[in-house]
Amino acid sequence: MALIVQKFGGTSVGTVERIENVAERIKKFRDRGDDVVVVVSAMSGETNRLIEMACQIEEKPNAREYDVLLSTGEQVTIALLSMALNRRGVPARSYTGTQVHILTDSAHNKARILDIKEKNMRTDLDQGKVVVVAGFQGVDEQGDITTLGRGGSDTTAVALAAALNADECQIYTDVDGVYTTDPRVVPEARRLDKITFEEMLEMASLGSKVLQIRAVEFAGKYNVPLRVLSSFDEPDFDADGSGGAIGTLITYEEDEMEQALISGIAFNRDEAKLTILGVPDKPGVAYSILGPVGDANIEIDMIIQNISADGTTDFTFTIHRNDFESAKAVLTRVANELGAREVVGDDKIVKISLVGVGMRSHAGIAGKMFKTLAEEGININMISTSEIKISVVIEEKYLELGVRTLHSAFGLEQKQG
Amino acid sequence: MALIVQKFGGTSVGTVERIENVAERIKKFRDRGDDVVVVVSAMSGETNRLIEMACQIEEKPNAREYDVLLSTGEQVTIALLSMALNRRGVPARSYTGTQVHILTDSAHNKARILDIKEKNMRTDLDQGKVVVVAGFQGVDEQGDITTLGRGGSDTTAVALAAALNADECQIYTDVDGVYTTDPRVVPEARRLDKITFEEMLEMASLGSKVLQIRAVEFAGKYNVPLRVLSSFDEPDFDADGSGGAIGTLITYEEDEMEQALISGIAFNRDEAKLTILGVPDKPGVAYSILGPVGDANIEIDMIIQNISADGTTDFTFTIHRNDFESAKAVLTRVANELGAREVVGDDKIVKISLVGVGMRSHAGIAGKMFKTLAEEGININMISTSEIKISVVIEEKYLELGVRTLHSAFGLEQKQG
Repeated sequence: MALIVQKFGGTSVGTVERIENVAERIKKFRDRGDDVVVVVSAMSGETNRLIEMACQIEEKPNAREYDVLLSTGEQVTIALLSMALNRRGVPARSYTGTQVHILTDSAHNKARILDIKEKNMRTDLDQGKVVVVAGFQGVDEQGDITTLGRGGSDTTAVALAAALNADECQIYTDVDGVYTTDPRVVPEARRLDKITFEEMLEMASLGSKVLQIRAVEFAGKYNVPLRVLSSFDEPDFDADGSGGAIGTLITYEEDEMEQALISGIAFNRDEAKLTILGVPDKPGVAYSILGPVGDANIEIDMIIQNISADGTTDFTFTIHRNDFESAKAVLTRVANELGAREVVGDDKIVKISLVGVGMRSHAGIAGKMFKTLAEEGININMISTSEIKISVVIEEKYLELGVRTLHSAFGLEQKQG
Repeated sequence: MALIVQKFGGTSVGTVERIENVAERIKKFRDRGDDVVVVVSAMSGETNRLIEMACQIEEKPNAREYDVLLSTGEQVTIALLSMALNRRGVPARSYTGTQVHILTDSAHNKARILDIKEKNMRTDLDQGKVVVVAGFQGVDEQGDITTLGRGGSDTTAVALAAALNADECQIYTDVDGVYTTDPRVVPEARRLDKITFEEMLEMASLGSKVLQIRAVEFAGKYNVPLRVLSSFDEPDFDADGSGGAIGTLITYEEDEMEQALISGIAFNRDEAKLTILGVPDKPGVAYSILGPVGDANIEIDMIIQNISADGTTDFTFTIHRNDFESAKAVLTRVANELGAREVVGDDKIVKISLVGVGMRSHAGIAGKMFKTLAEEGININMISTSEIKISVVIEEKYLELGVRTLHSAFGLEQKQG
C-alpha cells in the first residue's frame, strides 16, 4: 500500500485499446490497495495533428492560443482514461492543468511549474478515487492555459509526486528501463536496476533520451524516487522491493551502489566540431568567440582551449551537427575580427561518454578508457571530464566499435557490485 | 458601431481555410468599428470523432468525463480562430467556458446556463480585442466542465449577447435565413426579413431546423435581437438597417409586421399516428393512456380526443415515426387494461402547419386553409390549432402538393405588408 504517481506517454495511450490496457494496469495497483495518481500525455499523433493545423495559419502562431490548442490533446486522454476506469468499477476523476491548479509562470509553450494545489487530489484519494491529471499543461495567475513544452508530462508527474509526497513516481514508456548503453549498438547492454539522479542527468543529456532532463532534475531536487518502466510489460507484484514494477529506479546514491565504477555508456551521433586556430591569447578571448555563437542561438556542448604557445591559442568546441554551417560562418567572421589564423571544422565526429558515480573514488578509469580505445586503433580528438563522466570525441566511423569495446572492457554486461 | 455577438457553427469552421474566412469576416466588422464577441462550435466532424472514441469504451460513458472530452472540440476552434485573427493584426483572445466563467448547473451533457461573468470580456472589448468564446460548454460550481447538449452553441451566443446587452446576436449557418417554407419543396419560397420569436419557435419545433429552440426561447426571454444568416455570403454593410448583415432578423412583434397574416409554412415528414378506439370515458382516462407512453420515453406531439358517444371515446395522438412500433405495443397493452375496443395506427402521415402572428387578429385563416386543401382533394385526418398556428395531419403522399398549394394560396412568394 503506497501512493504512486504513474505517467503514461503518448505511445502508451496511442489508441483507445491501449488506454483500456492502461486502465487494466491501474486497476491492478488499486486492487492491491495502492493510491494512484495518473498523468497522461496526448495520444500519439494528436499533438502533431494540432500543430499541423496551427501551422496552416502561421508558422509561429500566437503563443497563448497555441497553448489553448495543444492542451486539448491531453484533455482528450484524461477523459477517455477516466471513462475506461469508471467502466471497470474503479472510481476515477479527471483534471486538466487548470482544474488541479498546476500554477506556472506565464512563459507560454515553455512554462515552469510554481505551485500545485493538492487539496482536491487528496480528497479524491481519501475517497478511494484514482486521480487522472493532464500532463504537460498548467495555468498562470491570469487563468490562462500554459504548456510546459514538449515532453513536459514527465515533469508534471514528478511535480505531482513531490507535492503529494508520493512513495514513487513511475514513468511508463516504450522502453523497459535505463540500459548500460543503447541495445541497438551493443546487444549485450544490460538494464540497470538502479541509477543515481546525477548519472541519469549525464546519461540523458548525452543522448539516452529516456526521460526529460527537467523531470530528472526536479525529481533529484525534491528527492522523488523515479522509476522508468515499460507500459507493455505486466506489473510483477512479487518482484523483490520493486513496488510491483520492474524497470530502473532513479534515486540518490546508496552504499550498495558504491562498488559500481561505471553505470553506463552514453553517446551522441549528432556532433560536429569547430576549431579557431592561432587566436591572439588575451583576456576575454573566450567570450569574444563564444558570445557571437550563442547570439546566433547555437548551443555549444564541449569547449576546449589549449595552452598558449607563441602568444596565440587554439580554441575548439562541439555543436549539434545541424548548426555546423551557420556556426562556421559566424566563427569565420569572428576569426577575421580577432586576427586569428584559420577556422577548421569536422562534422563527422561523435562523442562517447562513460558515466558513473564510482569514478569519484576510483582512479584509473580515464586511463583504462584511453588505452582500450587505442588498442582498437581509435584516435581521440578531444577529451572532457567531470566528476562522474569522461567524454571523448572520435571519428564517426568508430562509434559502434568504440562503444562495444568499452562496454565489454568495463564488464557492463554483468551485474556489478 | 455596435456590439455584436457572432456565432459560427461546425460547418462554417469545418476546415482551417474556413476558419480563415471567418477571421476575414470578423475583421470587416472590426474595421467598421464594431465590437465583436465570437462564439464557435467544434469543427464539423470533430464532435463525432470524439464520440466515436468514447463509444469504443462504453455506450453510455461517465457523464462528467464525456463533457471533459467533448469540450475539447470547441477549444481547438477558439485557439485556431484567435490565431487567425491575431495574424491579421486583429487582437483576439480565446476563452473556454471555464475561463469566461459560463456558470451552469451540474446536469452533465445537458446543462443549463445560470450566470455569465462578463468582466473579462468587457476589459478585452474596451482594449479593442475580439473575444472568442467556446460554445456549447460551461463550468459548474465545483469547477467541473459541463456541456449544454448538442447544438448548444446557439444558446451560448444568445446568453452572451444577453449578458453583454449586445445590439445583435448573429447566428451564421449554412442557410441564409428563415424561409416561408422549405425551398426544396417550394422553389418560390422567400426569405423572411423579419419573424417574431413566437413564430420562430413554432417554425423550429415544427421542423424548420435553423436554430435551436432553446436559443430562440432564451433570446425572446432576454429580448436579444437574433439574426440568422449564411457564413458563405459576403457581409453587405450598405444594406439598409441590416447592421451589415442580411439574413432573417428574429425580434419582437412590431407595428409594420401586423399586416402579415402568415409568416411561413412548416411541415414534418416523420410523423405517425395511433388511435385507441372505444375507450370507456371516465375521468383520468387521458393520463392512463399517455402516462405509459411517456414512461416508455416516447414523445407525443398532437393529441386529439373526440367527444364521447355511447359512454366511450376515441383518443388519437401523433408521435415520431421511429417510435411507431414501440408505442403501438404500449398502447395495445393499455387498451386491454382499459377495456378499449381497438388500436389502429398509420405511419404514413405528415403534418403541415401555417404559422403567423397575424392570425391573432384575422379570422378565416383556418377556413381558407381547409378549403385550399379540399380543392386539391387532400383529406384532413387531424386538426390542431394554437393562437398563431394551425396544423393539419394529412396522408404522406400529399405533402408536397399541400405545401405548394398553401404557399401559393396565401401569397407567401410575395413580400407582404
